[in-house]
Amino acid sequence: MFKWEQAFATRASRMKASEIRELLKLLERPDIISFAGGIPDPALFPKEAFAAAYADVLAGENAAAGLQYSVSEGYKPLRDWLAGEMGKIGISCTAENVFIVSGSQQGLDYLGKLFLSPKDTALVTWPTYLGALQAFNAYEPTYDRLNLSGNRTPDAYRATAAEAGGRVKFAYLSADFANPTGETVDRAGRERLLSLADELDIPVIEDAAYQSLRYDGEAVPPILALEIAEKGDIDATRTIYCGSFSKTLAPGLRVGYIVAAAPVIRKLVLMKQAADLHSSTINQMAIAHVAERGFDAQVAKIRTAYSARRDAMLAALQKYMPEGVSWTKPEGGMFIWVTLPAGMDGATLLARSIETEKVAFVPGQAFHADGSGANTLRLSFSCADAATIEEGISRLGRLLNAERLAA
Amino acid sequence: MFKWEQAFATRASRMKASEIRELLKLLERPDIISFAGGIPDPALFPKEAFAAAYADVLAGENAAAGLQYSVSEGYKPLRDWLAGEMGKIGISCTAENVFIVSGSQQGLDYLGKLFLSPKDTALVTWPTYLGALQAFNAYEPTYDRLNLSGNRTPDAYRATAAEAGGRVKFAYLSADFANPTGETVDRAGRERLLSLADELDIPVIEDAAYQSLRYDGEAVPPILALEIAEKGDIDATRTIYCGSFSKTLAPGLRVGYIVAAAPVIRKLVLMKQAADLHSSTINQMAIAHVAERGFDAQVAKIRTAYSARRDAMLAALQKYMPEGVSWTKPEGGMFIWVTLPAGMDGATLLARSIETEKVAFVPGQAFHADGSGANTLRLSFSCADAATIEEGISRLGRLLNAERLAA
Repeated sequence: MFKWEQAFATRASRMKASEIRELLKLLERPDIISFAGGIPDPALFPKEAFAAAYADVLAGENAAAGLQYSVSEGYKPLRDWLAGEMGKIGISCTAENVFIVSGSQQGLDYLGKLFLSPKDTALVTWPTYLGALQAFNAYEPTYDRLNLSGNRTPDAYRATAAEAGGRVKFAYLSADFANPTGETVDRAGRERLLSLADELDIPVIEDAAYQSLRYDGEAVPPILALEIAEKGDIDATRTIYCGSFSKTLAPGLRVGYIVAAAPVIRKLVLMKQAADLHSSTINQMAIAHVAERGFDAQVAKIRTAYSARRDAMLAALQKYMPEGVSWTKPEGGMFIWVTLPAGMDGATLLARSIETEKVAFVPGQAFHADGSGANTLRLSFSCADAATIEEGISRLGRLLNAERLAA
Repeated sequence: MFKWEQAFATRASRMKASEIRELLKLLERPDIISFAGGIPDPALFPKEAFAAAYADVLAGENAAAGLQYSVSEGYKPLRDWLAGEMGKIGISCTAENVFIVSGSQQGLDYLGKLFLSPKDTALVTWPTYLGALQAFNAYEPTYDRLNLSGNRTPDAYRATAAEAGGRVKFAYLSADFANPTGETVDRAGRERLLSLADELDIPVIEDAAYQSLRYDGEAVPPILALEIAEKGDIDATRTIYCGSFSKTLAPGLRVGYIVAAAPVIRKLVLMKQAADLHSSTINQMAIAHVAERGFDAQVAKIRTAYSARRDAMLAALQKYMPEGVSWTKPEGGMFIWVTLPAGMDGATLLARSIETEKVAFVPGQAFHADGSGANTLRLSFSCADAATIEEGISRLGRLLNAERLAA
């Protein structure tokens, strides 16, 4: 028997199973009410539009092109369409600034690969998107806590990175309805981040996966838009914007995008050429077909559905949560973040919850690069109807009340 | 203007433009006869079968599943179908041994990521598949020349690797109708490679991208099949088999696969989870749909077409090449490898050829990890009809005759 472990590179030791994805397997049991997911509601997918798109591509003059190899930077009409959309949110750019990836998770992997050498430091919030930590981990960085209040000096970040044996390589932030907290960073926070990045002379990775899913309140300009406004030209900026069609159209096609200054886009294109040649040609064409014909209508449909579910979950939390439990009030996205009284443990609670109340959620510790956050948990409202949400949260409230009495 | 170069990891310095892909852009000029490509003939794609596949998936009960996130290991019915196909070529395995990747190029990237630390040694042939070198380069290895004659001792490999600052991590080989040479390693050569790998205690990466495209001669068992025969069980083997649907069904969907011992498959699944979650769900379903209904018929159609083109190119080479030029006689695949008289330079010849004779090919140097092979070139016969092949090779012969006179 070959001993594989001895053959692996050191980076492989940090490739571990995702708690969330392992959990998802468990949660296919029909008797469980799950707020664990974080996936879009499949009932909202524009199935007919995709059926028409694939049929049109494969019946038309582009059929052979859709099945053939294509360029690493991505399908030009899709990049053009995206450049137009970006312009609407303050990101003036051309197709030269747009790069297609196989889902925005691949974008995060490529950015880790491009910037991180072992022992370099990535700045992330506590908590942050677990998938970002997993993607970056392959490149063996250390993490330092990104403080958006402006209360930490650039020198303090530099000193911590030097102590870890490297230097600060980038700041990663999901600024809108973040996974897992649902929170949005305000304009002042974004501007402070840009100042910090200028002072540290590092890129900013803006994860915009949920940005189009705003249900109320006023949109805050993307970090990249603020930087373009300041510096006059996208090619003078340091912010790398990562977008996705997974939450708006469908994740199963694996089509996402990166928008940034042309020099970094060109390097990413070379990286992709070596890593997987290009993203699926036919899927890029299908996404372009559906997006050109009905992106706004599809987003409107999703917003209506999800905002009602968010409202139902916030109302149920208000009604059923015992004292000492707090939660975020997101203006969009798919998640609400719950903080339990100090000393309570989300993972222990999940085990009990699945056993007694049959309600699932994700314990919050995995989202913390330093292993803190044991008393937090993530709830997703994207895949349950209002009645199920009320029932599930009431059960969770009952469990938390019982725990409190037992403590 | 942000200075991107100072922010990149050291590995980024080895991410350079692919000569072949840059060349491909140039060769869209309709006045050029191109033997440069290496892509499948789009006229042979099973367009109707794919149209039916996407329509069926999106009209059936699996429609939402096709558009949704799915598991990192790949679509189970496709993995089951592949396990069945593998059994037919001596690779007894189950779906647990099969992992779906976004094209076999991604498989090579993942294997480089899994095994290579900077300064480790990868054993490759001189010449080898350029895309493999590009994929591995991101992980900063050195290369040593894999000698299949058995004339080099394990200690010699170990010593060279230690001198480079690391150890030998794997041997990579395309054993059937290799890109770029078109040559096939015989059974004795494969067995010597397995012995060497046992002695060095390293994995073997078997790139089988062209394996189904045999036009004549007798099939040699895959390296993995020979090792299973010897060791009794795929889970006891060290060979990692990389396959692709790109040369048989279509490359535009980006669906390939890795077949290997379960422990290494499980690690690759974790890697993929972090790197891009999974390959496109709907494309895996479409490939399974088309493969289950007509894989063998499609392969038979391609073999008939390509073998006639290979015959045409071999006949034309025989007719038009001047003395001192030699070439391989492949039993399959897409490529013929030409060796020019020593001292001639393939890149210089290409520049002249495009200017005067309007014939394109790929100079062979890029396929050599040590920068040798200047007097070699790769011809592809996959995309031209017999008359065009005769015309193109006759022009190339005229050019080579002129060069010889000038020398």
